[in-house]
Amino acid sequence: MTMRPLVALAMGDPAGISPELTAKLVALEDVRSRSRLVVIGDRRVFDEGARVAGIAPQLKTVEQDADFRKLDSDVLFVDLGHLDPAEIERGVPSLAGGRFALANYRHALELGRDGRVDAVCFTPFNKQAMRLARADYDDEIAFSADVVGLTAAASEFNVLGRLWNARVTSHIPLRDVASQLSSERIQRALALTDACMRKAGFARPRIAVAGLNPHAGDGGNFGREEIDVIAPAVMAGQRDGIAAEGPFPADTVFLRAKAGAFDAVLTMYHDQGQIAMKLMGFDRGVTLLGGFPFPICTPAHGTAYDIAGQGIAFAGASHAALLLAAEMAAAQTSQLDGRRASSATG
Amino acid sequence: MTMRPLVALAMGDPAGISPELTAKLVALEDVRSRSRLVVIGDRRVFDEGARVAGIAPQLKTVEQDADFRKLDSDVLFVDLGHLDPAEIERGVPSLAGGRFALANYRHALELGRDGRVDAVCFTPFNKQAMRLARADYDDEIAFSADVVGLTAAASEFNVLGRLWNARVTSHIPLRDVASQLSSERIQRALALTDACMRKAGFARPRIAVAGLNPHAGDGGNFGREEIDVIAPAVMAGQRDGIAAEGPFPADTVFLRAKAGAFDAVLTMYHDQGQIAMKLMGFDRGVTLLGGFPFPICTPAHGTAYDIAGQGIAFAGASHAALLLAAEMAAAQTSQLDGRRASSATG
Repeated sequence: MTMRPLVALAMGDPAGISPELTAKLVALEDVRSRSRLVVIGDRRVFDEGARVAGIAPQLKTVEQDADFRKLDSDVLFVDLGHLDPAEIERGVPSLAGGRFALANYRHALELGRDGRVDAVCFTPFNKQAMRLARADYDDEIAFSADVVGLTAAASEFNVLGRLWNARVTSHIPLRDVASQLSSERIQRALALTDACMRKAGFARPRIAVAGLNPHAGDGGNFGREEIDVIAPAVMAGQRDGIAAEGPFPADTVFLRAKAGAFDAVLTMYHDQGQIAMKLMGFDRGVTLLGGFPFPICTPAHGTAYDIAGQGIAFAGASHAALLLAAEMAAAQTSQLDGRRASSATG
Repeated sequence: MTMRPLVALAMGDPAGISPELTAKLVALEDVRSRSRLVVIGDRRVFDEGARVAGIAPQLKTVEQDADFRKLDSDVLFVDLGHLDPAEIERGVPSLAGGRFALANYRHALELGRDGRVDAVCFTPFNKQAMRLARADYDDEIAFSADVVGLTAAASEFNVLGRLWNARVTSHIPLRDVASQLSSERIQRALALTDACMRKAGFARPRIAVAGLNPHAGDGGNFGREEIDVIAPAVMAGQRDGIAAEGPFPADTVFLRAKAGAFDAVLTMYHDQGQIAMKLMGFDRGVTLLGGFPFPICTPAHGTAYDIAGQGIAFAGASHAALLLAAEMAAAQTSQLDGRRASSATG
């Protein structure tokens, strides 16, 4: 792999720390050495972010229809010219802010879909602003699938260093979790996790599956889903060649994963994984949208309206998101090259 | 407070690390300087534990009906003479092991009930062995209430350093959690948490209340319990003078508590708190039974059958449990003395 992957970096919500984070990312040396960036946004908003961050990173504004692969700058900027930062009040979700983030993200996804970049990253969105801009905006997955034209299954992963967390159910009331679980659904989540992690370079990811109930049901005393639903899915996954184990009690499985016993934990509901992942590394956590033809990454934290404009935002999670996207894009390219080579010689 | 509180230390399951932990605890200098211990068990099992631990702590075997307050040894031993360690296979739950732990614990509770000790501690039980010894054994709370004759509400707390965790529901299937929550039940849990923490010396404990749903329901998008059930309970608690706040998203509330913003987190279900507390300090966590007339503490971890007999068990959590029991007993005595003094002068 001699080529650095091309990563589209979409600017997120302009009222929070996203402009500052975008500027800080662009200036990082190992981001420049391990990827080539195409920043999507408005140059005025970016420059305001750079001013807040107290830096003046090098980048080159290019035409929207330029062939990015042929240009030799490390960082390119596609200026959609659609937002004057003077229109935005810091710390307040707005229609203009939501439209800005949504337009940047759509543009980045289209570049990915058309093969003009190898991966997509974005700095944090504000969900309320997104809903102002698009009433039916639910989460990034549905929007992205729509733009990319994805019909296969996609899922959100949380990644912290080398540890992944996937979940079977997500943004639903806790009261509905148990009835929405099924062996089929858990098997699909296991298969998707396994496939995404292999794409990211894990030869055979070791996936721990969490139980649903206290003490993983304590042998059926506190619930039977472990016995009736989860264990059969784990066994089915094992028969399909997935290195799955479990179900394990949720309150100790992350301790074992943290100690290196597993590469991933598949959790049954949102907070089961989020409580653990945020405690283990709130400021380094990455959210990955898996199941798309190219990696899509973003920091796991939000827009941090409370510290917007102060220049103190920590770019660690954004940095990790960008490097993960670049690494996955590189792994996919080399796997693809490998398959091409073996089919040419086979 | 010149008197050191008298703490009964009941030996737990003999097939795991409990005998070793008991011996290690007894030998700790600050345990001896901050409390006076009455160990309840069988001297042969204790001596075997001391041999495994590689120590020979000083203690004095006394008659069951001795007046412990009048004896001047730091560590007393009440030898019930009811178990030959040769009968126990390490790492295997047994009827004999369950009976041993249950008899020791019952004896300790009776000493507490009768005012002959100021607090009770125990080294870990094995739930399976306890059920062999007593078919209807569910948890420590029901058993303890039965022995002590407690009719008021009691609850289990997890304590890590200065941070407490209480929960509204506990050992029930996750599918039943939402329907078992009510404002009344949450208010009772808040009141009990507040009362126990005041007894433990917190002047006005700051209690964060967790939501139930992802993102604490996201304003009703992912469930309405925060709006309909939890928030009203928090407000009622505030009207009663409790420093309660919330509901907060469960995946960040422990980060704030860890940073010092709260003294306690009240969680809605077992794993919501346990995932966080175990990640923050698995080997230092204490379980406290609150609501009894005297403190009852035990390490939060289990019997560790996998390392029994090796002498490598870490006594940190048992140590913390014993010091918490001693500290709470001292605080209760001084509060009682304070009330007596003020009623005498009032």
